[in-house]
Amino acid sequence: MAQGYFVTFEGGEGAGKSTQLRLLAEALRRHGIPVVTTREPGGSAGAEQIRSLLVEGETGRWDSMTEALLHFAARRDHVARTVWPALAEGQWVLCDRFADSTLAYQGYGHGLPHHAIEQLYDMTIGAFAPDLTLILDLPVEEGLRRATGRGGDETRYERMGLAFHQRLRQGFLDIAQHHPERCVVLPASASVDVVQVKVLEAVEERLLARAR
Amino acid sequence: MAQGYFVTFEGGEGAGKSTQLRLLAEALRRHGIPVVTTREPGGSAGAEQIRSLLVEGETGRWDSMTEALLHFAARRDHVARTVWPALAEGQWVLCDRFADSTLAYQGYGHGLPHHAIEQLYDMTIGAFAPDLTLILDLPVEEGLRRATGRGGDETRYERMGLAFHQRLRQGFLDIAQHHPERCVVLPASASVDVVQVKVLEAVEERLLARAR
Repeated sequence: MAQGYFVTFEGGEGAGKSTQLRLLAEALRRHGIPVVTTREPGGSAGAEQIRSLLVEGETGRWDSMTEALLHFAARRDHVARTVWPALAEGQWVLCDRFADSTLAYQGYGHGLPHHAIEQLYDMTIGAFAPDLTLILDLPVEEGLRRATGRGGDETRYERMGLAFHQRLRQGFLDIAQHHPERCVVLPASASVDVVQVKVLEAVEERLLARAR
Repeated sequence: MAQGYFVTFEGGEGAGKSTQLRLLAEALRRHGIPVVTTREPGGSAGAEQIRSLLVEGETGRWDSMTEALLHFAARRDHVARTVWPALAEGQWVLCDRFADSTLAYQGYGHGLPHHAIEQLYDMTIGAFAPDLTLILDLPVEEGLRRATGRGGDETRYERMGLAFHQRLRQGFLDIAQHHPERCVVLPASASVDVVQVKVLEAVEERLLARAR
């Protein structure tokens, strides 16, 4: 049985995470690699129910600590019931957002102490971490313009203001700097095709070439 | 402004917590004491939404870690938005279940390491604790018989089996032994009137007499 990998896509609103995740899944499947695509918050029946508490409603409905606890409750359910079982079967798991988003949004964005988020991480999923994290980086104004165009109900974070989203962007860049072993920052202003090539290069270099 | 106190009611299913809480609230109000009555999980708009994820549905819908995280998310919202503001106004807060229930149910009942629950407590509400905890103690069979008679949708815990409820009862008794400064165990097999007298005696002795 071939080994599966856990690949996460991170970045601010409108950076193209979902699109690039889908394109990578298609490319891997064309090579006969079994892939599960998933997302956070959500990705399992229970976590999807928690998701609606997080992404809908007023921007001030939770304080940052409550929000972090809800994210880790959803994450625990998602990892235990979707991610770990798929990896155990040798599948790849591609995930739209993961724990870096909690550190970026609740930590860098809302000022929750980073050690609290790290403690929650250790407590709920231990030493488990992504094999590769692709951080799609985009100027904040451009991302919000793209995201606002999508519409829908899940706009709670998009409405949080420019300064918040700038802290967020800086947060993701800091995380990449602290975890070079798993993080790759990809400029996401380029066309979908160009970004896709960068994604495939990162997967080839960081995972496939090393496995051979 | 007189000082408010935070009084929690704990115990297994069917022990009479809600009834005794209501009777204590009425007695305090007759003495001109301002009282807020509340419950966990729940007690604030957000926490009530989290509550429905916890008390409805299949018994195995969450693992014990996810469940503990959801309880502390609800608790954080409840404490920050209902309990602390009421205490700051000098009101008494009477709460049907609090953190001891998480330790009893997820810790003693489901085997989650106690230090994880204590870490979550410290992280989310710090050194804050009840001024008085009334533990209504009842033989397990009697409590379940009473609780089952109530009907309704919130039966997820009642369906967990006798051995689970026995661990729960022992858990509450252990907690009382470890925290004699705030806990009083009251045998709850007696009539409502007799238990109420014991509740009033505990409040008088532990809170009112000391305040004078």
